Amino acid sequence: MQAPANQLPVIAADVLARVRALSPRVHCITNAVAQALTANTLLAVGAVPSMTIAADEISGFVQRAGALLVNLGTFDAERRMAADIAIDAANEKNLPWVFDPVFVDRSAPRAAYAKGLAARAPKAMRLNRAEFIALAGVEPGGDALASYARVQSTVVGLTGAIDLVADGERLAVISNGHALMTRVTALGCAGSALVAACLAVERDAWQASAVALLIMGVAGELAAKRARGPGSFAVEILDTLYALDRDMLTAHAKVS
Amino acid sequence: MQAPANQLPVIAADVLARVRALSPRVHCITNAVAQALTANTLLAVGAVPSMTIAADEISGFVQRAGALLVNLGTFDAERRMAADIAIDAANEKNLPWVFDPVFVDRSAPRAAYAKGLAARAPKAMRLNRAEFIALAGVEPGGDALASYARVQSTVVGLTGAIDLVADGERLAVISNGHALMTRVTALGCAGSALVAACLAVERDAWQASAVALLIMGVAGELAAKRARGPGSFAVEILDTLYALDRDMLTAHAKVS
Amino acid sequence: MQAPANQLPVIAADVLARVRALSPRVHCITNAVAQALTANTLLAVGAVPSMTIAADEISGFVQRAGALLVNLGTFDAERRMAADIAIDAANEKNLPWVFDPVFVDRSAPRAAYAKGLAARAPKAMRLNRAEFIALAGVEPGGDALASYARVQSTVVGLTGAIDLVADGERLAVISNGHALMTRVTALGCAGSALVAACLAVERDAWQASAVALLIMGVAGELAAKRARGPGSFAVEILDTLYALDRDMLTAHAKVS
Repeated sequence: MQAPANQLPVIAADVLARVRALSPRVHCITNAVAQALTANTLLAVGAVPSMTIAADEISGFVQRAGALLVNLGTFDAERRMAADIAIDAANEKNLPWVFDPVFVDRSAPRAAYAKGLAARAPKAMRLNRAEFIALAGVEPGGDALASYARVQSTVVGLTGAIDLVADGERLAVISNGHALMTRVTALGCAGSALVAACLAVERDAWQASAVALLIMGVAGELAAKRARGPGSFAVEILDTLYALDRDMLTAHAKVS
Repeated sequence: MQAPANQLPVIAADVLARVRALSPRVHCITNAVAQALTANTLLAVGAVPSMTIAADEISGFVQRAGALLVNLGTFDAERRMAADIAIDAANEKNLPWVFDPVFVDRSAPRAAYAKGLAARAPKAMRLNRAEFIALAGVEPGGDALASYARVQSTVVGLTGAIDLVADGERLAVISNGHALMTRVTALGCAGSALVAACLAVERDAWQASAVALLIMGVAGELAAKRARGPGSFAVEILDTLYALDRDMLTAHAKVS
Repeated sequence: MQAPANQLPVIAADVLARVRALSPRVHCITNAVAQALTANTLLAVGAVPSMTIAADEISGFVQRAGALLVNLGTFDAERRMAADIAIDAANEKNLPWVFDPVFVDRSAPRAAYAKGLAARAPKAMRLNRAEFIALAGVEPGGDALASYARVQSTVVGLTGAIDLVADGERLAVISNGHALMTRVTALGCAGSALVAACLAVERDAWQASAVALLIMGVAGELAAKRARGPGSFAVEILDTLYALDRDMLTAHAKVS
C-alpha cells in the first residue's frame, strides 16, 4: 500500500505547495449560498475559481479548467442543465470532477438525481453521514464506505466529527476539525472545492481527497483558537488556509 | 394582556435557549444577496437553514422544516414559483411562515405580487417604513400597524431606528440597534429569518417576532461597540448572536 | 486638459464626500458570487444598492437609480434578459452605466455577447488585461486603451498591478493596491460598482472612473497593513472604505 495514512501530513504540505505554484483553475457548479465562500477558499490556497452555469459557455470553462466541482446545494433548473453539460465535458477530457450531493437526505427527487450523477464517474465524492445513507442505503462504517467506493469506482470522503476517506482499499481517519465548522454555512461545500483543487494537481484521488480534508480540518482547528464565534471563525479559517505550512500541518494533523 | 413588553427580554432569552436546544430547520426562499448572511445568522443561533428553490423538491424541504421564510429580494421567475409552492405546503401543514416584502416600494409589479402573498396568511411580516406604505397605503403609526395586522391576521414587525411589533392588540417598541446595521447588506433579511426561527419554537407570533427583533437589536448594539466599520461589524454581530445570553439581553434591552 | 492626474486624490475625496452626502442608488446586475460584497462595498461608502434581475420590474429599479452596473460574471439566461432591458432603460433616461465584461477571455459566446453590450454606450468599462485583449484584439498599452476608448466613446479602466484609466485624451496611472486584492473573490466587481456610484455623482466619466479605482486602491493598500490574510483583508477593506478621508487619500495616492 503506497502512501499510508501517516504520510498524509507531509503529502498534504506537498500538494498544497503544488496548488500554490500551479494555480489550477477549478470550475464550480455550486449553490448560491456557497459561491462566495467557495471562491474565497480556493483563492486563499492559490487556486482560481470560476462559477458560470450558462449552458452555452460552460463547456468552454470546463475545458480550460484543471478540475470540476458539482454541488447540488440549490438545485434549480439551470444548474441541473449546467451539471449535465459540465460532467460530459469533464469526462470527455478525462478531467477529474468532484461530486457533493448536498441535502440528498431531504428530498426524494434530489436523491434520485444524485444517484444518476454518482454513476457518471466522479473521481471523488464528499458528503456527510445522512447524505451517504440516502445514496448508499446503509450506515457509513469503514466497510460500507469501502464497498460503496469500490462499486462506484470513486473515492468517498465522509465528513463529520471524524472524517473518513475510502477508495475501496485504503482508509484515512482524520480527527481534526472543530465544532464551529458546523456554524458557518457552506464550509463543507468549500471543502469539496478544495478536494477538486487538490485533484487538479494530484491524480491519486484518495491522496487528493484525504489531504484536502486534512488541510481543511487542521485549518479549522487552528482558526478556532483565534475565533470568538462563527463570524470571526469564517475570517480566521481563510487567513489560516492562506498561511498554512508544512510545520503547522505536521504538528497538528491527527490522522491514522 | 399576557406577556407585556417589559417581560420580553426574559422571554427572548428563553426563546433563544429553545432555538439552541431544538435546532429548528428554517427553509428560506430569499434573494441571492442575502443567502449566505441569512444562513450564517441562523447557524449562529443554532437553527438549521435550507435554501433550495427547485419547484419539484421545495415541498419536501418545507414539510421537514419548522418554519418558512419568503423574502422578495431578487424577484426572479424561479423564486416566485418556489414561493407559491412553499406557501401552499406550509399552510397545508400549519407551519408558520414569515413574509419579508423587500423593496415593494420600488416596483409596482412587486407590490402587486406582495399584496397577494400577504393575503396568504403569513404568521408574521418584517418590513421597513417605505415597504409598509407601499402595501398598506398609510404611514406606519402604532394605530395603522395594529389595524393592518388585524385586517391581515398577522403580526407586523416594522424595523427602523426604532422597531415596532404589532398584532392588533399588543405593541412592542424596541429602541435597540445601531446605525451600522444599515451599512451591511441583508441584515434586515437575516432578521426576518430570525423571526422564522423563533416562530418555529414559539407559537405566539407576536412574542416570537418581538423577541427576534430584540435579539437582533441588542446583538447589533453590542457588536457596534467592538466594530471599526461595516466589515468588522458583520463579523461581530454573528459572534455576538452566538454568545448572547440572558444577562446581556436583560442588561441592554430597551423595550416598552 | 482639465483635472490632470495630480489633482485626482483631492477630487477623489470630493467625489467620495458627494457619494456619502447624496446616497445614490446603484442598480447592479451582477453575478451571484459578487452580489454580497458588491452591495457591502456600496453601503460602506454610503451608496444604496439594488440587485433584482426580474424582467418585469428591472426598468422600475433602473429608472429610480443614479447609475447602473452590468457585470457578466455568472452569465445565466435571466441575467442576460435583465441586462438588455436595464441598458435600454438607462440609455433612454441618459443614466450612466458601467460595463464589467468579466471572463470574456474564457468563452467565445461570452466575448461575442460582450462586444454587443460594449457597443451600447456604457459611460465606463472596468476590465483586466486578458479581458481587454479578448474584446479589443490588442495588448492594452496606453495608446491601445486610448484608441479603444475613442472608438467606443467610453472610458476604459484597466485594473492590474497598475491601473490605467483612459478616455481617449486623458490617461491616469494608479499604482496603489495590494496583492491580497487578487485573493478575495469579486473585489474587481465591487470596484466596478464603485465606478458606478461615482458616476452617479460626477458626470466626467474619466474622473469618476479614475477616482473610484484610486479609492479602491488606497483602501486596499491600507487594509493590507492590518490584515493577516485574505479573510481579514476582506473585512478590513470595507472598514477602510467606510473611514477613508481626504488625508488618507492624499497621503497614500500614487497617481500620475
